[in-house]
Amino acid sequence: MALYTIGIDFGSLSGRAVLVDVSNGAVKASASCDYPNGILEEKLLCGTVLPPDYALQVPEDYMHVLRETVTSVLLQGNVSPDEIIGIGVDATACSAFPVDKKWKPLCEDKRFYKEPQAYLKLWKHHGATDEARRLTEAAAKVCPELLSQFGGSISAESLYPKLWEVHERAPELYEATYEYVEAADWIVYRLTGEKTRNSCAAGYKAYYDPEKGYPDEKLFREAGFCPDGSVADKLPSPVIPVGQRAGTLSKNAANLLGLKPGIAVAAGLVDAHVCVPAAGVTEEGHVLMIIGTSACIMMLGRDRTEVPGICGSVTDGILPGFEGYEAGQSSVGDLYGWFVDHMVPADVHDEARARGMNVHLLLSSLAEKKQPGESGLLALDWLNGNRSILCNYELSGLILGLTPKTKSEDVYRALAESTAFGCRVILENFASHGLPVKKFTVSGGISRKNPFIMQLYADILGMNVEVIETQVGPALGSAIFAAAAAGRKAGGYPSVQRAAQAMKSPVLTVCEPVPEHVAAYNELYREYRTLYAYFGEGENNVMERLHRFMKE
Amino acid sequence: MALYTIGIDFGSLSGRAVLVDVSNGAVKASASCDYPNGILEEKLLCGTVLPPDYALQVPEDYMHVLRETVTSVLLQGNVSPDEIIGIGVDATACSAFPVDKKWKPLCEDKRFYKEPQAYLKLWKHHGATDEARRLTEAAAKVCPELLSQFGGSISAESLYPKLWEVHERAPELYEATYEYVEAADWIVYRLTGEKTRNSCAAGYKAYYDPEKGYPDEKLFREAGFCPDGSVADKLPSPVIPVGQRAGTLSKNAANLLGLKPGIAVAAGLVDAHVCVPAAGVTEEGHVLMIIGTSACIMMLGRDRTEVPGICGSVTDGILPGFEGYEAGQSSVGDLYGWFVDHMVPADVHDEARARGMNVHLLLSSLAEKKQPGESGLLALDWLNGNRSILCNYELSGLILGLTPKTKSEDVYRALAESTAFGCRVILENFASHGLPVKKFTVSGGISRKNPFIMQLYADILGMNVEVIETQVGPALGSAIFAAAAAGRKAGGYPSVQRAAQAMKSPVLTVCEPVPEHVAAYNELYREYRTLYAYFGEGENNVMERLHRFMKE
Repeated sequence: MALYTIGIDFGSLSGRAVLVDVSNGAVKASASCDYPNGILEEKLLCGTVLPPDYALQVPEDYMHVLRETVTSVLLQGNVSPDEIIGIGVDATACSAFPVDKKWKPLCEDKRFYKEPQAYLKLWKHHGATDEARRLTEAAAKVCPELLSQFGGSISAESLYPKLWEVHERAPELYEATYEYVEAADWIVYRLTGEKTRNSCAAGYKAYYDPEKGYPDEKLFREAGFCPDGSVADKLPSPVIPVGQRAGTLSKNAANLLGLKPGIAVAAGLVDAHVCVPAAGVTEEGHVLMIIGTSACIMMLGRDRTEVPGICGSVTDGILPGFEGYEAGQSSVGDLYGWFVDHMVPADVHDEARARGMNVHLLLSSLAEKKQPGESGLLALDWLNGNRSILCNYELSGLILGLTPKTKSEDVYRALAESTAFGCRVILENFASHGLPVKKFTVSGGISRKNPFIMQLYADILGMNVEVIETQVGPALGSAIFAAAAAGRKAGGYPSVQRAAQAMKSPVLTVCEPVPEHVAAYNELYREYRTLYAYFGEGENNVMERLHRFMKE
Repeated sequence: MALYTIGIDFGSLSGRAVLVDVSNGAVKASASCDYPNGILEEKLLCGTVLPPDYALQVPEDYMHVLRETVTSVLLQGNVSPDEIIGIGVDATACSAFPVDKKWKPLCEDKRFYKEPQAYLKLWKHHGATDEARRLTEAAAKVCPELLSQFGGSISAESLYPKLWEVHERAPELYEATYEYVEAADWIVYRLTGEKTRNSCAAGYKAYYDPEKGYPDEKLFREAGFCPDGSVADKLPSPVIPVGQRAGTLSKNAANLLGLKPGIAVAAGLVDAHVCVPAAGVTEEGHVLMIIGTSACIMMLGRDRTEVPGICGSVTDGILPGFEGYEAGQSSVGDLYGWFVDHMVPADVHDEARARGMNVHLLLSSLAEKKQPGESGLLALDWLNGNRSILCNYELSGLILGLTPKTKSEDVYRALAESTAFGCRVILENFASHGLPVKKFTVSGGISRKNPFIMQLYADILGMNVEVIETQVGPALGSAIFAAAAAGRKAGGYPSVQRAAQAMKSPVLTVCEPVPEHVAAYNELYREYRTLYAYFGEGENNVMERLHRFMKE
């Protein structure tokens, strides 16, 4: 009898379930479903108008997606409930909302259904930028070590600004809040009846440390976030390491989904980090980059080391037993997309249409004909600022070396090179802090669609770039965690690492560096690094001054 | 009886004559005519194939244009030959060719009509870049003061490389050459029978100094240009200051053109410099900028002062009695044009078409709605290198401050600002060497067509920008020189200055600086200046390294 696990990935607009063969990771069935109410950005369902920068969701939508997608993969897969040994769930984070003592969403409470603060705040909800700024300023005073562990600022996308916004704008709701839960943990609760918080979301988004717990209350007091009791009172449930079993499937949930009660349910997971085992990344020094509009760069280490300028380092944050390091680049696909939308002339678009090609691929095929350095261009990839390792969102993009012969494919190539140079800075930063990069794996849309850009990364990083085949990385990752949560006795695996070894995605391709290109790019990288230091490390703060000037 | 002069301007592709009222400068008639053989770039008329970078012309074509245009303005103007008191002639320079003792072009000699070296080499003939390089290297050794007076290098477009090329490639022709003449001087000879060389072309293109004569022969020997006799042997005719009378119209020429013999013919002139009096620029500290694909910036001074980084300073070079300073920017209209051709998306072109607007003007009208600094962009205008004051053609363009919100009109504005910043550097360089700029006048296509850009110049320079109305600046300038050559007794003027005061072009508009814009641009200029120093003055030679890398 074949055995399966189910992985469910809750994205921003839709969720996806996959039914995965535990023996080899083959995806037997896959189904996705949009959230019925999507993202609420202008008003609530009852008509309450929302301020700008709001991005809310309805928690029950997640249950709808859960039912639809699980039912669908069971139908498609034509497997018996007996063959399914575990479930794993990941979601975006911090995507959180207030619940009562029974973990019932307070937006379903009559008292609060007109209150925006009662709804799920999606990761990209930016209603609490002011709270984030105040928390960052306070942290700089009372716990600078926290800031340096988490990329120099407390993001408006993290948990405390979102929670503080509840306290400021809806104090009665705050009072009524038993817990402020992450979406993935809430789904796990709905599946098991167990109230847990996963170490990944708790670590990266609420700065939880297995030894020290949540940040000291003096941070919140210094910032002016002073509820009755402590802030951590709103996060009472235990934090459990990812990879652990959160509980077993309850009868109710089993009935709802057509599954067998008692099977393992893994601790909640976060959509980016859960890709790590799906990509076969289970060892110290192995890096996974997910390349999309931005890039998320994750690395496993055995011990905690202070690495300046990264987004965060969390014990058990990615895989149990490892320190999980996360860094990022704010503009990758975004940078290429901006260029194609705003700076590419009509004849290139016309040619792409005539050849039935995507403009990105046309520019790539034209750029590919040239040699490294042939265009004389060099760019800085800071269109949206620099997330790692400068942690500075007032930086901006730069293109240098323009001549009358500069064509759009030259600039496109220079921009792609700049993102690879930016990635190299991050990897070298890991290495120079005791975390040498031994292997580099890539996932995400661009990696599968654009071999030219992946070859640039290989040539610029000077190492093999392994591109992963799966298009459902997060859901596959959740299924891997589910197999570990099920354990060996149930037919799963004794650890996430072992599960990943068996179930990881196949490799689509490996780009190998071309020695002459590596040599040329080593020279160009030196130039990039000099400009990086000049504009990014304080020699000339012109970008920040222009940024402020722009806003005046 | 009204009195008139005729000014004739020989451009690259065509010539133009104007019939101008001496009392007020009104253009009574204007006619232009293309050179019948245009520019010979691929082969001679006899079929001789030309090397790349050649740009030759047939001297007799200039006579054809002279006859056609002068006859035409006389017909149109319906004036009697008695009413015409003088003629002035300008041409591009160095545009020169070899002649025999009777100043007959040697390309008309049977022995040489198949020899490319015997033809008129247009200013932009680039067949002698190697000779130019060798002369520059030699000058750096034996007469560095010459290099510093003329912008740091001996251009392939100047006289000696062109003449040396004759010696190298056609020694018999060199032997047969009595003189190597500039086109304008040759036309003056054809009108008067007087063999003269004008101080403007002789100064800027052959480094003639009224006190020292032509450069010392050691320069040529050091470079390896070692003819029998001296190089200056091929430039035997006297140099006369512009503004002087070269002679009077001969009977032959008068018959040919339908004019009265004996009227004054001014010394030959150069097309850019001759615009100075046409624009009413006749005083110390008054600058004329001619803004087209590149910009030529001319200034009058009373005494010779060493100003580093300019293209040249020549006594009597622009107006008699003045030191004529010339500086330049390699990319102005070229920079805007490159952007419009290569970096502007289809929707902007579509909108321009729909509104029946030129793309430059559409981008200008969109850019005009923003405030200085609002886009957060800053650019360096070095697409073709930097002519003044860095004299470095390995520099390249830069755009800084790119964000996801950057649109094409923002970049267009930043590029236009960068050319104005570049102009400000040149003006401040004059001022810091004892030549303060008292007034700033602009001529050339962009100045009449694009008021937005002219306003940017006013705001960035912090001074009034006076835009000249005439579209025939060089020909009008020649007519002004003709009125001075005619002299007071004949109904003209005692000096070029007096002629210019009466006959200069009307002012089309004066752009006045807006104080708030000036303040903002002073801040942005400081940033520009910092980048200028960093990339242009040796702090980081990345542009030069990339330029060389590109060529490897």
